[in-house]
Amino acid sequence: MTFSKLLIANRGEIAVRIIRTARELGLRTVLAASEPDATSYAAELADEVEVIGPAAAGKSYLNTEAVLGAATATGCDAVHPGYGFLSENAAFARAVADAGMTWIGPDAGAIELMGDKSRARQAAEDAGVPTFRGSHGSLSPDDDAAAIAAEVGYPLVVKASAGGGGRGIRLVTAPEELESTLAMARAEAQGAFGDPSVYLEQFVSAARHVEVQILGDGEHVIHLGDRDCSLQRRQQKVVEEAPAPGLPEPVRTKILSSSIELGKLCSYRGLGTVEFLYDPVSHEAAFIEMNTRLQVEHPVTEMITGLDLVREQILVARDGVLRLSQQDVTFTGHAFEFRVNAEDPASNFLPSPGTLSRLDWPGGPGIRVDSGVVTGSVVAPFYDSLLAKLIVWDSRREDTIVRSLRALGEVRIEGVKTTLPLLQAVLARSEVRDIVHSTKFIESTPDLLGVTS
Amino acid sequence: MTFSKLLIANRGEIAVRIIRTARELGLRTVLAASEPDATSYAAELADEVEVIGPAAAGKSYLNTEAVLGAATATGCDAVHPGYGFLSENAAFARAVADAGMTWIGPDAGAIELMGDKSRARQAAEDAGVPTFRGSHGSLSPDDDAAAIAAEVGYPLVVKASAGGGGRGIRLVTAPEELESTLAMARAEAQGAFGDPSVYLEQFVSAARHVEVQILGDGEHVIHLGDRDCSLQRRQQKVVEEAPAPGLPEPVRTKILSSSIELGKLCSYRGLGTVEFLYDPVSHEAAFIEMNTRLQVEHPVTEMITGLDLVREQILVARDGVLRLSQQDVTFTGHAFEFRVNAEDPASNFLPSPGTLSRLDWPGGPGIRVDSGVVTGSVVAPFYDSLLAKLIVWDSRREDTIVRSLRALGEVRIEGVKTTLPLLQAVLARSEVRDIVHSTKFIESTPDLLGVTS
Repeated sequence: MTFSKLLIANRGEIAVRIIRTARELGLRTVLAASEPDATSYAAELADEVEVIGPAAAGKSYLNTEAVLGAATATGCDAVHPGYGFLSENAAFARAVADAGMTWIGPDAGAIELMGDKSRARQAAEDAGVPTFRGSHGSLSPDDDAAAIAAEVGYPLVVKASAGGGGRGIRLVTAPEELESTLAMARAEAQGAFGDPSVYLEQFVSAARHVEVQILGDGEHVIHLGDRDCSLQRRQQKVVEEAPAPGLPEPVRTKILSSSIELGKLCSYRGLGTVEFLYDPVSHEAAFIEMNTRLQVEHPVTEMITGLDLVREQILVARDGVLRLSQQDVTFTGHAFEFRVNAEDPASNFLPSPGTLSRLDWPGGPGIRVDSGVVTGSVVAPFYDSLLAKLIVWDSRREDTIVRSLRALGEVRIEGVKTTLPLLQAVLARSEVRDIVHSTKFIESTPDLLGVTS
Repeated sequence: MTFSKLLIANRGEIAVRIIRTARELGLRTVLAASEPDATSYAAELADEVEVIGPAAAGKSYLNTEAVLGAATATGCDAVHPGYGFLSENAAFARAVADAGMTWIGPDAGAIELMGDKSRARQAAEDAGVPTFRGSHGSLSPDDDAAAIAAEVGYPLVVKASAGGGGRGIRLVTAPEELESTLAMARAEAQGAFGDPSVYLEQFVSAARHVEVQILGDGEHVIHLGDRDCSLQRRQQKVVEEAPAPGLPEPVRTKILSSSIELGKLCSYRGLGTVEFLYDPVSHEAAFIEMNTRLQVEHPVTEMITGLDLVREQILVARDGVLRLSQQDVTFTGHAFEFRVNAEDPASNFLPSPGTLSRLDWPGGPGIRVDSGVVTGSVVAPFYDSLLAKLIVWDSRREDTIVRSLRALGEVRIEGVKTTLPLLQAVLARSEVRDIVHSTKFIESTPDLLGVTS
């Protein structure tokens, strides 16, 4: 499906990122921007800016009518949703296609399937992807929850089928808590997601988050390697790396090959990420969920493959077929990504809006910066606080850590508080160097959160 | 030879570049800075700053006593000269060694050999490096210049033995001009270099400049591939790329292997560059000279090898042996480097000093920036006008050109005039895309030099 004018339905660093590749592909770009974002750096780089509403995301970036209206009004024939906002909204993907425009992402059906976490889990099982013990699909009111829970074993978690990204999860440590927790979880899921469905899954206490990047054209599916995103805070990734370190080769091989199978099972088109928890004690990895969009952390994969993932994503949407085969993809070296957020570590990571009076990034070999801001940019309080991503590559993980500490030390940001002290403190820890950390590491290490005090 | 504190006897982007790697290697850094450079970005990044004299390079960066004094005063045990200034001053290299400090570069003997262009040419011949027809060594007063010239053939050039980098060269188109040109050239060489020696060499009118990066430890010598630096203006490189495009494989193989032989012949230690002219008509490459130091354009080699050349350079000075063998070096993709100079293309490239009121670099995949300045930096009129180097990588040359045009278009510099319009205009030319340009291309294409008018 040929197209020449791309609406970017997003903001910040990912809007900038998409504009860059779109320009290289000869596409004209229109940024759908909220009122305060109409003077952003992304707006400066875009060919055109279309204001879609006031600051509140519900009235702009999440307003499907406004976004679709902007695409139509400006004569766009393709839409890139980035991540977050409308990127996993199947109805919006369908509306874009119905309006005769190309949706840069998988078909609405794949988004829907993976959006229902219990159906996704079932699909993963069907594709041979390792899964945790759990109920097969959502619990129906007729199911004997106690019997299923006994089979799964305690402790276990109740998960909202419509949840994801760590939301809608409750722990059950003993049988006597099951009934009341189920009732609560259903009521919460109804409130939060408009769907009371829940399912049960084995609880894993200290695991690493690993994920597989896949790329498909509906028929052929390849993997672009794995990543580790265990360094998280409040379910938000803080530091990511590729390849996933410390993964036994049989586990790596299994998650890579079964992720491809999952992609084939759902005739996947475009970029997708299959997420796993890896238990370093049992050496088992199991499926969590699949994200049907570009990820924040895609640059670490770009650094070790030399590919431009946004380019591949747009080209497969345009051409309908993958231009890469698995053997075209090679992996070299090790990359880290550091999310630089405008938050104050000394005040419990409260957002720290302001004007960037100084903003100097590091440079030199192996350093890449994906920033949504420049010196003088205003950091507004309305959205997530990601300013930029610092990405660092070197040939070996230990060298990349050294280079990263050097690079983080060069960053100069004035006008807002940032998470840089946290990033530096995390990377300096022996647990991270020795790969003995889990997804709970940052929050269970008070020293890290009090880095500035 | 172990060391822990490095004096950086340079300024601008290359001082920043060296500080970065030194920090990663755990070395303490001292910047030897002129008075106006004591508040530069390099000075901000260095651990210590030692002021070595006033702005004029002769009183600071070229003042060997002041530089050596700074090293001694601050307790440095190693000196990195960067490029230019004292980097190819054999006496200084010897003085550093005599003071018990490690010189990050080849032995003084190798610097001297390659500094004498006629001796260097002879060494190249001895090593099997292809050379142009010419006199074997400098002409002595007893030589029959006319007979030698007839053998070389007309047109030919008279070159100062102590010249180099395109300086000290005169064209002779016919026999009757020979005697007078020789006399003039000898007088000029005496005036410019303190040495009247000259030699004769075949004239090549429309060639490309290609060069081979070598790295040695005195015994083992490896190559790190080739580069093309044909895009020049007034003998100054403007855009460089790696690998050298359009080079027949037998020619590439020959220059790579014979450059290694030349390195072995002179027991070369450290980084060096063997420069060639390549004649695309005859498909012949021939030796020009060897540079016994880090080159400005080293990042394009880093981009295609994944190596940090400054790291390798420091490690071989420290350890005495190469840690890499030839098969450890692999080449991936294609890189360009763009020199961003503070010069005004509309005013015949006059230096354009000023204060950088805005300085936003591009980012995203494949983009690297090596800058000596940040927003707010003062660009003084005392030194060469190089502000920063924008380096761009992609998997194929044609993709790197597209990505480079995108990246160049994102640069925002206010407060000084820059050569960006020239860089963009050059890269957009079909001659460059089709690799039919020569070292004369920029100057023989008036459109390019009038880019802003």
